Amino acid sequence: MNSFDITEHSHRRFNPLLGEWVLVSPHRSKRPWQGQQETTEKDTRPQYDPSCYLCPGNVRANGETNPNYPSTFVFTNDFAALQAESPSGSFTDGMLRAESERGICKVICFSPRHDLTLSDMETAEIKKVVDLWQEQYQELGALEEISYVQIFENKGSVMGSSNPHPHGQIWAQSSVPGEPAKETEQQEAYFAENGRSLLSDYLAQELEEKTRIVVENEHFVALVPFWAVWPFETIVIPRRHFGHLGEISEEEKSGYADIMKRLSSVYDRLFQTSFPYSAGIHQAPTDGRNYPGWHLHMHFYPPLLRSATVKKFMVGYELMADPQRDITPESAAERLRGLL
Amino acid sequence: MNSFDITEHSHRRFNPLLGEWVLVSPHRSKRPWQGQQETTEKDTRPQYDPSCYLCPGNVRANGETNPNYPSTFVFTNDFAALQAESPSGSFTDGMLRAESERGICKVICFSPRHDLTLSDMETAEIKKVVDLWQEQYQELGALEEISYVQIFENKGSVMGSSNPHPHGQIWAQSSVPGEPAKETEQQEAYFAENGRSLLSDYLAQELEEKTRIVVENEHFVALVPFWAVWPFETIVIPRRHFGHLGEISEEEKSGYADIMKRLSSVYDRLFQTSFPYSAGIHQAPTDGRNYPGWHLHMHFYPPLLRSATVKKFMVGYELMADPQRDITPESAAERLRGLL
Ligand SMILES: O=P(O)(O)O[C@H]1O[C@H](CO)[C@@H](O)[C@H](O)[C@H]1O
Ligand SMILES: O=P(O)(O)O[C@H]1O[C@H](CO)[C@@H](O)[C@H](O)[C@H]1O
Repeated sequence: MNSFDITEHSHRRFNPLLGEWVLVSPHRSKRPWQGQQETTEKDTRPQYDPSCYLCPGNVRANGETNPNYPSTFVFTNDFAALQAESPSGSFTDGMLRAESERGICKVICFSPRHDLTLSDMETAEIKKVVDLWQEQYQELGALEEISYVQIFENKGSVMGSSNPHPHGQIWAQSSVPGEPAKETEQQEAYFAENGRSLLSDYLAQELEEKTRIVVENEHFVALVPFWAVWPFETIVIPRRHFGHLGEISEEEKSGYADIMKRLSSVYDRLFQTSFPYSAGIHQAPTDGRNYPGWHLHMHFYPPLLRSATVKKFMVGYELMADPQRDITPESAAERLRGLL
Repeated sequence: MNSFDITEHSHRRFNPLLGEWVLVSPHRSKRPWQGQQETTEKDTRPQYDPSCYLCPGNVRANGETNPNYPSTFVFTNDFAALQAESPSGSFTDGMLRAESERGICKVICFSPRHDLTLSDMETAEIKKVVDLWQEQYQELGALEEISYVQIFENKGSVMGSSNPHPHGQIWAQSSVPGEPAKETEQQEAYFAENGRSLLSDYLAQELEEKTRIVVENEHFVALVPFWAVWPFETIVIPRRHFGHLGEISEEEKSGYADIMKRLSSVYDRLFQTSFPYSAGIHQAPTDGRNYPGWHLHMHFYPPLLRSATVKKFMVGYELMADPQRDITPESAAERLRGLL
């Protein structure tokens, strides 16, 4: 029998950021697909849409009028999942346990232009989005009752975005949710043991091996992590170890904008479509504790697998057992790199 | 300020089976929906489809011909994610870690009829599916190299099913995947402490409170768990504490078929559509260890939220932070119960 080869044989890969495993089935992309296909959005959006509640000058659900904003615009979500004023308390009844959760949900418009996405915008314009992310992280994180600030973007109708106007969201809340809590545990344990951040050491190794790197600049690197779950998942890591946007320099913010521009452009080229994804920034909790091991990073989770219309379904086995992927991270990175 | 009320205010609920939390936003279902809508499948399927690779007498991708099976039929998946013969080994390179994973993937046809689903089948026919699940669990679980047997069904194209012929799958593998591993930890710890299974005690409490029960018979109860993630998620729990299908009685198998028939019929009535879901049986690992705390159960994870065409998107916040739901489990149970 030939020997175990991660480019050919089924295996599990360990995700040190979460302390979890992903199942990889390299041979499986040969399977034919007769299932659901997504419809692609025709890109005939006007620069301004009178019926869009995010366009400048339009009226929102709560009756407020958007200002004629020239670059970015942030407001509190009219249908927020978390509310600042809800009463706090806990509920216990035998085996049932619940805790109140307060928070603030905001919407961030990236541009007044209805027809753009991040990849269409100039790097200088994206830099203003990074500026706003920084401001919001600092402002919300400084609030007594906020322990964690999740900045994210759902792009494309296949990712549940209900409005194509370029925008993202922030959900800031009183507890630290599961995913960042697991990353906290893993990163702080690594730092305590090694005196360096987990992602610094990981990035150094990836820069050496090069096979999973997609694009890099002076301050940031985008790569397909060894433990990627989604077919073309990437992680964006700053070269310098810092825990949150309160610590990023002006130069690094420009580098962040530049890497966002390049990565999202590569994504759009992959299937010649405005590439859908959920993206989110993971950074240190704002609960007042000290997190020397935290290393800020951004995840891109794009659902597409084979084309603009065929996505990867995270169902059945994935919901009941473990995440599973059908192509190797190395082959995904190679394809993305080829589109630079 | 009024006091904390789990039917009205945002909160987190604890899932004792996984040891994780879910965010619940009761007020959020009022939000309008302008996003992606699913297309419903027209139900004009013939009893026999000459182009279906699961219908009796047809030829599959690997050239084999399906027998003229009268009830159920099981075969090894032609595009298996796991393979029995792949070489074993492990890979470590600095921070990169992988382990080979062997296994067997099977497909189970529930019926020769192309046009049926479980809810259309007679209880006696569903009983034959349960018989086959039992046989397969025992046969696969007895293999030296198989530590866990995951039985599941992806139903509906929105759940990634690429063929509407009524069928499910089994992925049996050499390690215990993440979800059942977490359930093992939680259940065994509970049993060690209390001398009763976690789900026995939980079920007793639910039967007392009644608010989350959907349907029950002599042997099984289907309910919306207090910690449900998907809008109309349910869990099916046997009244008697047993760990796996090797321990189920003939009578209980009939009870299992009966509860499946009733629950799937209720689901179909909810949005007057052949209701899509991923369903899966969680049971004790087959790694040769003893699991006194394991209590077999089945999860139903249906994606629909508001109608046959509007689903809940598990994206953005859910991928980056924690699962989040927009209606309470109690109101979901009430709606389902009303359709009995
Ligand atoms: O039924 P198939 O074609 O094997 O595939 C389906 O179920 C699998 C197991 O849940 C998933 O990994 C696939 O993404 C899904 O499309
Ligand atoms: O952007 P919306 O309309 O708030 O909603 C979208 O993002 C939310 C946060 O990721 C999800 O909970 C919703 O399921 C999704 O449709």
